[in-house]
Amino acid sequence: MPKFMDVHDGFVGVTAEQLKDAHDADLAIERDEEVHFERAWLDPVAGKVFCLATGPSKEAVMRIHARAGHPTPDVFELTVEV
Amino acid sequence: MPKFMDVHDGFVGVTAEQLKDAHDADLAIERDEEVHFERAWLDPVAGKVFCLATGPSKEAVMRIHARAGHPTPDVFELTVEV
Repeated sequence: MPKFMDVHDGFVGVTAEQLKDAHDADLAIERDEEVHFERAWLDPVAGKVFCLATGPSKEAVMRIHARAGHPTPDVFELTVEV
Repeated sequence: MPKFMDVHDGFVGVTAEQLKDAHDADLAIERDEEVHFERAWLDPVAGKVFCLATGPSKEAVMRIHARAGHPTPDVFELTVEV
């Protein structure tokens, strides 16, 4: 299954609990699109979130994030990894 | 040790071997700054590379990448992870 990294801006000051809630909102519906969000990392000073996911397409990842309330256009397909 | 994600642009068309060479250039000198680059992911269509690292500071990560020949100003400290 293809792997993706997506990037969110504007999460300045978000707490660990809020990140977990956002991630749980993805996990609750991700099966609808055969997506799985493996991990999310937050820099609360810069307001950046990075999510690592697998799924059938970039659009599927985007739809789950949008339905969960945190849409982003910045999704990258990771075809090489070291 | 703090954890960091950094982002590189302009890696359009880069191959798996070229990404490995770039990553190896980091690994060869990272101990000088007590940095460790754990993983790197590439989207060769968008030209984006994401590197996950640990180290004492953002500046230490930036110095290793710069000395290895692929500087980036986009380094984010990941204080929260789910």
